Amino acid sequence: MPVKMIGVIGAGSCSNETYESARRVGVGIAGMGATLVCGGLGGVMEGACRGAHEAGGQTVGILPGHDRDQANPYVAIPIVTDLGQARNVLVVRSSDLLIAISGGYGTLSEISIALKIGKPVIGLTTWPDIDEIQYVSTAEEALNAAAAIV
Amino acid sequence: MPVKMIGVIGAGSCSNETYESARRVGVGIAGMGATLVCGGLGGVMEGACRGAHEAGGQTVGILPGHDRDQANPYVAIPIVTDLGQARNVLVVRSSDLLIAISGGYGTLSEISIALKIGKPVIGLTTWPDIDEIQYVSTAEEALNAAAAIV
Amino acid sequence: MPVKMIGVIGAGSCSNETYESARRVGVGIAGMGATLVCGGLGGVMEGACRGAHEAGGQTVGILPGHDRDQANPYVAIPIVTDLGQARNVLVVRSSDLLIAISGGYGTLSEISIALKIGKPVIGLTTWPDIDEIQYVSTAEEALNAAAAIV
Amino acid sequence: MPVKMIGVIGAGSCSNETYESARRVGVGIAGMGATLVCGGLGGVMEGACRGAHEAGGQTVGILPGHDRDQANPYVAIPIVTDLGQARNVLVVRSSDLLIAISGGYGTLSEISIALKIGKPVIGLTTWPDIDEIQYVSTAEEALNAAAAIV
Repeated sequence: MPVKMIGVIGAGSCSNETYESARRVGVGIAGMGATLVCGGLGGVMEGACRGAHEAGGQTVGILPGHDRDQANPYVAIPIVTDLGQARNVLVVRSSDLLIAISGGYGTLSEISIALKIGKPVIGLTTWPDIDEIQYVSTAEEALNAAAAIV
Repeated sequence: MPVKMIGVIGAGSCSNETYESARRVGVGIAGMGATLVCGGLGGVMEGACRGAHEAGGQTVGILPGHDRDQANPYVAIPIVTDLGQARNVLVVRSSDLLIAISGGYGTLSEISIALKIGKPVIGLTTWPDIDEIQYVSTAEEALNAAAAIV
Repeated sequence: MPVKMIGVIGAGSCSNETYESARRVGVGIAGMGATLVCGGLGGVMEGACRGAHEAGGQTVGILPGHDRDQANPYVAIPIVTDLGQARNVLVVRSSDLLIAISGGYGTLSEISIALKIGKPVIGLTTWPDIDEIQYVSTAEEALNAAAAIV
Repeated sequence: MPVKMIGVIGAGSCSNETYESARRVGVGIAGMGATLVCGGLGGVMEGACRGAHEAGGQTVGILPGHDRDQANPYVAIPIVTDLGQARNVLVVRSSDLLIAISGGYGTLSEISIALKIGKPVIGLTTWPDIDEIQYVSTAEEALNAAAAIV
């Protein structure tokens, strides 16, 4: 069952504009027939899940806490880890590639682990100046870059 | 999105008879509209995934290693943890209830964690004499017991 | 640096009699020149740490939460995991052998993982009737059994 | 038992000059009476452990694999996690502050998690231009900065 898994990582709370970018990325992931993987919380994670879910796609949220209720309402498959920040590694490992949208230190930890273990990272208005990130400027460019990889 | 998650735990290799029990449990879980959660490997895990998948249900495999390829072919959503045995905790935490079928010490660790954190465990030809397990004799009884809980 | 690591697992709260058994086990582990490994909390874990610490031995507590303050006062080396029950696996993996004293389902999960991955388990008034546990009746017998292994 | 825990993070293989910086940091940590925490492998981790150990200090190595033998020879307390990169979180959580020396993406993931959860990070010839890192130029400056915090 060779379904592709595309991770979206980013800030747990964000501006409307960033949320909208994440939503459009989610729509596009669903359109590619891929499964969306994320950390399951708010902000960028919710925007991406909402886009994918409303477009009929599959959404996985790998949650840091011990309760499924912390998932945003667009997570279809909640994975409850109770691992705290260590769950970031699972988001990375479960994805074929990562799209980073905005984000703080948690996102930087996911970018780092992805590059450490050799997963491609596409960056949209996220941490700058990291050589191995493929930077793009719009949700559509991020999706094109993802489609070229998977 | 209130989909129920039902975990199936058990031996990674098993007799044909046990595999068939697991498969029937998987069929029933799909029939209930629930998502099947398991450790993603062979034996009981594969039997349950096969039953659920062939009946049109959703299957999640929470894998111990670092490679999606270790999943059995009926896992639709592979979660790659690279956590070794610690992934057992995630199988338990992500499930509303657990159905234990046969199994060795790995399964006993999952039963223990489930009872430790208060998740119901239904037991079918598995570790005997644990007070809080609800023991049943057939796949159908296991499904009836599960349906009464979720 | 071939220092031996001996794990003590058991109930997080216990009777005075069980605490005293754990304390004597801790004294003996220190006397063997081994390092005591445990889950770092109360009850059996505290008793064992206290015995080892007061006898001049080294004590490691592998904690489930995110705060060092949950360690009992006899833990010299607190390892803060924030992994919840998944930290049980680390207690087992870090030990050359395990001594189980009393205990509930958390302890049973540690016994299970130990036997799953091939670590010897010595049992003192703990879960009965598990074939691969070496059962003993006193703290002194537990220490003799441990000394014969390490 | 209020012993301080100081984490040293950095590249798993490094130049002789970087190894020597790490070694001097380790000597200083031992001199402060603090316990050294690290990932237990080679390069910067080994240099720091060597310095601390040879100066009579305590060294903890939180290992990614399933075998104590992967620890460098100056680790007195090996913690075997079998968690892969997820063990990085434990190095951070178990430390009062982190000293980052050189390092690649694994180190960047540890810096990120530290800053995410509010642990101070002192940086010596490591990832540049991260606002919340306190940058220093020598091992001695790193130790002075650490002493001012703990």
